Amino acid sequence: MNKTDSIQTIAFEEGPRWGALNLIDQRKLPERYEIFSCKDYREVEFAIRDMVVRGAPAIGSTAAYGVLLAAREIAESTGSDARAFLRELKKACDFLDASRPTAVNLAWAIRRMYRLAESVLQNGNPGELLDELKEEAHRVHREDIEINKTMGRNGATLIHQGSTVLTHCNTGALATAGWGTALGVIREAHRQNKGIFVYADETRPRLQGGRLTAWELLQEGIPSKLIPDNAAAFLMQQGKIDLVMVGADRIAANGDTSNKIGTYMLAVSARAHHIPFYIAAPVSTIDFDTPTGKGIPIEERAPEEVTHIGSHRIAPEGIGVYNPAFDVTPGELISGIVTEKGILTPPYTQSIGELKSSL
Amino acid sequence: MNKTDSIQTIAFEEGPRWGALNLIDQRKLPERYEIFSCKDYREVEFAIRDMVVRGAPAIGSTAAYGVLLAAREIAESTGSDARAFLRELKKACDFLDASRPTAVNLAWAIRRMYRLAESVLQNGNPGELLDELKEEAHRVHREDIEINKTMGRNGATLIHQGSTVLTHCNTGALATAGWGTALGVIREAHRQNKGIFVYADETRPRLQGGRLTAWELLQEGIPSKLIPDNAAAFLMQQGKIDLVMVGADRIAANGDTSNKIGTYMLAVSARAHHIPFYIAAPVSTIDFDTPTGKGIPIEERAPEEVTHIGSHRIAPEGIGVYNPAFDVTPGELISGIVTEKGILTPPYTQSIGELKSSL
Repeated sequence: MNKTDSIQTIAFEEGPRWGALNLIDQRKLPERYEIFSCKDYREVEFAIRDMVVRGAPAIGSTAAYGVLLAAREIAESTGSDARAFLRELKKACDFLDASRPTAVNLAWAIRRMYRLAESVLQNGNPGELLDELKEEAHRVHREDIEINKTMGRNGATLIHQGSTVLTHCNTGALATAGWGTALGVIREAHRQNKGIFVYADETRPRLQGGRLTAWELLQEGIPSKLIPDNAAAFLMQQGKIDLVMVGADRIAANGDTSNKIGTYMLAVSARAHHIPFYIAAPVSTIDFDTPTGKGIPIEERAPEEVTHIGSHRIAPEGIGVYNPAFDVTPGELISGIVTEKGILTPPYTQSIGELKSSL
Repeated sequence: MNKTDSIQTIAFEEGPRWGALNLIDQRKLPERYEIFSCKDYREVEFAIRDMVVRGAPAIGSTAAYGVLLAAREIAESTGSDARAFLRELKKACDFLDASRPTAVNLAWAIRRMYRLAESVLQNGNPGELLDELKEEAHRVHREDIEINKTMGRNGATLIHQGSTVLTHCNTGALATAGWGTALGVIREAHRQNKGIFVYADETRPRLQGGRLTAWELLQEGIPSKLIPDNAAAFLMQQGKIDLVMVGADRIAANGDTSNKIGTYMLAVSARAHHIPFYIAAPVSTIDFDTPTGKGIPIEERAPEEVTHIGSHRIAPEGIGVYNPAFDVTPGELISGIVTEKGILTPPYTQSIGELKSSL
């Protein structure tokens, strides 16, 4: 078995009470491989907020299991009172939803779970509710891997033999239910023996590239080098980059894409060097209800992410910090958006509109 | 006395043997304030190479004192043999010159010291050689501060009331004999009560912005925030940056400028957002003999600068790294070059050519 296929980013386990959601603790990698076990939905919310688990598709799957844990817990106290159950479940869903604001997959997965609960209680067999929710959470999780693999095959057509690909942040098995989005495309191109080379941005401040992508690239044996984020344009200037492939946390209806901070600066640099710039993301990342990037909330995170590495202080006490976790790349800088339904091309208002109609 | 005026980045001290060059150990700031004392020119070479002292003008001054230490040591063994003295001094100069390849001020200061030695031995009074070399090293050092202050006044005219300035790396008192180049311009604008605000790139991998510029900004009381390098374009997109002001390690005769890695990506981003992008550097940074940026050697430094913070590993064992210390920004992306002789404007082949003729 390939090592990457064995990365269990998210694994639900039946336990003594409501069960447990076991997550690879991504705050600790690559130094230590540890499992963070969530015994209830409050611990799931903490795990998302504190970035034990991160990556838009991964937090979607995690939240689905979080809703399952909440449903099991709430059912114990509300018994056969369906209205009380739904009211409490809604509260738990809102609590989970507020853990991080930018990625839309989180809201998408929670809504999918909640709607199923509503539907089963109204039209189905209430006795099967908890079983159905468990099946649905598993489905969200399983589907994500299948979607990733399809996306990988679609996106690999954009990567020519011998290409050098630049990527940002971590969009691999650790950012999803498994396999990956942008890194899934790269993985597929590598497995197709395209002889690719990857430059990975280390991705300040949390170093998901240096810690997680580098780890996955080594596991998969993909020839690669790590670079400081600010070296990317210099590589482009030297003709060392053939294309940029990154993930997304939310895509507006006009193609404007929020992704990890630094993505926009890469897109601007790629355009200046006439290098194609691609996004790879499942359709669940598209927020059809948000017309443009202006409507995407950008999470600002704690200054300590910039002033400290672990407990080690790297900036003087008292300095102010601006630490946006994401930025928004306008659709006009994006050459194509790889999804499991094919590759969307500009103008995105049209291609995303057509995709929406087809769903 | 203002705190910044008391920063003694480089201080020569007469001692029991050849004297000592005392440097603020910039590898330790801001955690610890320690003095690294060089007792001979070999220790000076190490201090430059290991970045105890860094910044193009600062390593120029440091190297001038290094030549002084070498001359005193060599004079002990060569006595009145002027040819042997110059031969050995040349070797020591070449050794010092090889410590770092990109900044031209290093070669400039060493050449200035060596030529003085040649001239005194050929036409002057050899008995006064060591005294004259000491005076010359002090002159290089003192002149740098004066040049910086003139540059500050020239550059401050480019900064309007209430402007927000983005800067990169450290170009302050710690990067020079005192005061600073780009940060000297910013310092001057602040002291002129222009009500400026500064965003400082943390500047991976060595974090000179986060460690040193942040420290100087706090010392000087300039309102400011630290950002990850990759957030700069996002700030520009939001209209938060009025101008970019950075330093230089070498400027070619056509205005192409090498500076800390990440400068080029800033320049590309500034151009895309129609934001003026300025360089501040003394005339000694201009390499009139190098026609374009293609002729500037780019130092590649150890992978550990990227994979480790201090002794703390932040990337997995075995990952390859590309770690260029500098990049080259083409003259066409530079709105103006602030020097002590005024502000050079495009076309630079002409303005730098005229400057050369006037020297």
